[in-house]
Amino acid sequence: MATFIRTVYWEDDAVVFIDQRLLPDQERYVTTRDYREVAAAIKALAIRGAPAIGVAAALGIALGVANSRAVALAGLRREFDDICRTFAMTRPTARNLFWAVERMERCFRLITAPLQSGPAAGGIRTAFPPFLARVKKALIDEAKLIGAEDIRINKQLGTYGQTLIDDGDHILTHCNAGALATAGYGTALGVVRAAAEAGKKIHVYVDETRPVLQGARLTAWEMMREEIPATLITDNMAGFLMKQGRIQKIVVGADRIAVNGDTANKIGTYSVAVLAKVHKIPFYVAAPLSTFDGAVKTGKDIPIEERSPEEVTCCRGAILAPRDIDVYNPAFDVTPGRLIAAFVTEKGLLYPPFRKTIPALLRS
Amino acid sequence: MATFIRTVYWEDDAVVFIDQRLLPDQERYVTTRDYREVAAAIKALAIRGAPAIGVAAALGIALGVANSRAVALAGLRREFDDICRTFAMTRPTARNLFWAVERMERCFRLITAPLQSGPAAGGIRTAFPPFLARVKKALIDEAKLIGAEDIRINKQLGTYGQTLIDDGDHILTHCNAGALATAGYGTALGVVRAAAEAGKKIHVYVDETRPVLQGARLTAWEMMREEIPATLITDNMAGFLMKQGRIQKIVVGADRIAVNGDTANKIGTYSVAVLAKVHKIPFYVAAPLSTFDGAVKTGKDIPIEERSPEEVTCCRGAILAPRDIDVYNPAFDVTPGRLIAAFVTEKGLLYPPFRKTIPALLRS
Repeated sequence: MATFIRTVYWEDDAVVFIDQRLLPDQERYVTTRDYREVAAAIKALAIRGAPAIGVAAALGIALGVANSRAVALAGLRREFDDICRTFAMTRPTARNLFWAVERMERCFRLITAPLQSGPAAGGIRTAFPPFLARVKKALIDEAKLIGAEDIRINKQLGTYGQTLIDDGDHILTHCNAGALATAGYGTALGVVRAAAEAGKKIHVYVDETRPVLQGARLTAWEMMREEIPATLITDNMAGFLMKQGRIQKIVVGADRIAVNGDTANKIGTYSVAVLAKVHKIPFYVAAPLSTFDGAVKTGKDIPIEERSPEEVTCCRGAILAPRDIDVYNPAFDVTPGRLIAAFVTEKGLLYPPFRKTIPALLRS
Repeated sequence: MATFIRTVYWEDDAVVFIDQRLLPDQERYVTTRDYREVAAAIKALAIRGAPAIGVAAALGIALGVANSRAVALAGLRREFDDICRTFAMTRPTARNLFWAVERMERCFRLITAPLQSGPAAGGIRTAFPPFLARVKKALIDEAKLIGAEDIRINKQLGTYGQTLIDDGDHILTHCNAGALATAGYGTALGVVRAAAEAGKKIHVYVDETRPVLQGARLTAWEMMREEIPATLITDNMAGFLMKQGRIQKIVVGADRIAVNGDTANKIGTYSVAVLAKVHKIPFYVAAPLSTFDGAVKTGKDIPIEERSPEEVTCCRGAILAPRDIDVYNPAFDVTPGRLIAAFVTEKGLLYPPFRKTIPALLRS
């Protein structure tokens, strides 16, 4: 197996991330001490994939706070809120982003709780600097923990998920729910990795995933690094492969999962799920609990990001369409829970009826 | 309406064609007196689209024969056979190619029939040059006729097809079955043009059609020239649009149609047809009789061309995937007749059961 891929992490008071826009031709790591650069990287898809966005936001928030010059808690709190808002506004669909922001907010609240009430709450400005350093350290530790947990969660999820995979299976995946979409190891590709590690002979069909080509650029790259046999196809070939009986399982990731199992994921996932149903191929969604949104009842309430027309009309510098052609470019679609055979989570496999099993899991 | 698009035609003893690989950025017409260049253009997709390939092959055969230096019929016949073989070997799937070759062969047979038997059949070598010129002229006329007929057929087909389109319809199309896929006017886009000419307000959703992007490059270009409102999407967005109720009709072309209605068309058509069925959207195939293959009983017997991996891993000069990734690149898939609501032909609309209506049409 190849070296472990690290997507985004903390090192020497800085956030380090691989610029995924340059893959597969260039493996360039960016080191930044400016949280705005982390937020911009999320917006520009240099860092992408729901769990990776969550980890990056947590690290970015920690970075912003670490560099604060505030001398009182109130000032730090204001800066912290601004930074959180910056990250919350980068992208709308992935639940993990908001989950990470909320977790950092809770950490801030917990560490500063003793001061909110009690005698130290007001006026002891001079006593604050060492305390502010403690707050900063707590937030950095929390962000690092979120990253470390993510890798552990993915490996756990993989051990459950690989039980769904049979020796000899040809597995279709869409987009990149791999190491690059997480802190490392991956969700859907975590299942694939775990199956390969368990000694199962598998073959992965990789949807290229237009317009941003996360399949062609990232999943294909990961599979080649891991030496897991893989074949690249264009998105519109998946149905024909299914018809030919060449796909036994489908595993994808998720950006947000509603309480009824409706799942937002990369545009094209819905079509794959419909085709899977028609061809009687099990369609699995692999995602950590942080992707489930207890506040969203059905897919109708998941906000779907629309991105710029240029993603469709241009491709890595090449012009693909007439200038000024109208373009529709939703980054995600919603797959109804009824098309999903099971969810693979770090707490185990989740089967229908999701209306019951998902709330039970979220309560656990 | 914009100027009429001419895809491939005869002019001043040469074949003229627009190099479709350069569209939409460059409109470059190539004039050639070498039939091999026409065959190479078909192979390289500079000329593509089943009816256009048929017309180009006919014109190419006429061009090759016109330049023959044979002084006897037997020699001309040998050259003619070689030229026909060259065209028959360019691409395997489109029926229209073989239909055109067969029609040129029949023309050759008919014009030379008086000489095959009768007193002139042997030995009158010196008498041949003026007769050979007559043969050449007959073949050129036949090829030009095939081109002219194709445009007339498409317009006729359009008048039938546009009756299926309602005012206000949003129509999805895949690949390019337009003026550029024919001698002019188009099959699927002929239906669209005819509906627009009939004053119906329509909107076309254009699948970009990876890997060669005939939708993004060609259909989008045609729609902009005609000022027919159109929106470009990636192939994997079509299902999501259908789910949202944003598509009322689907019209595509065809490369070969079996007697039972099974239809080979650009890769991705099958997925669109399955999605259409699930969403209860009528899926129509527009094609001239020359696309129907009376010798092919079901889709299983249609040869499917596989093309080079580079079409998938590179795109107009841009690198999209890791070097050496395995690629599967079928250029076509087969849509079962049961997913097709009707065929639109120059003889009218054809409804199921196709097993009965197609043979009846072919006999008519």
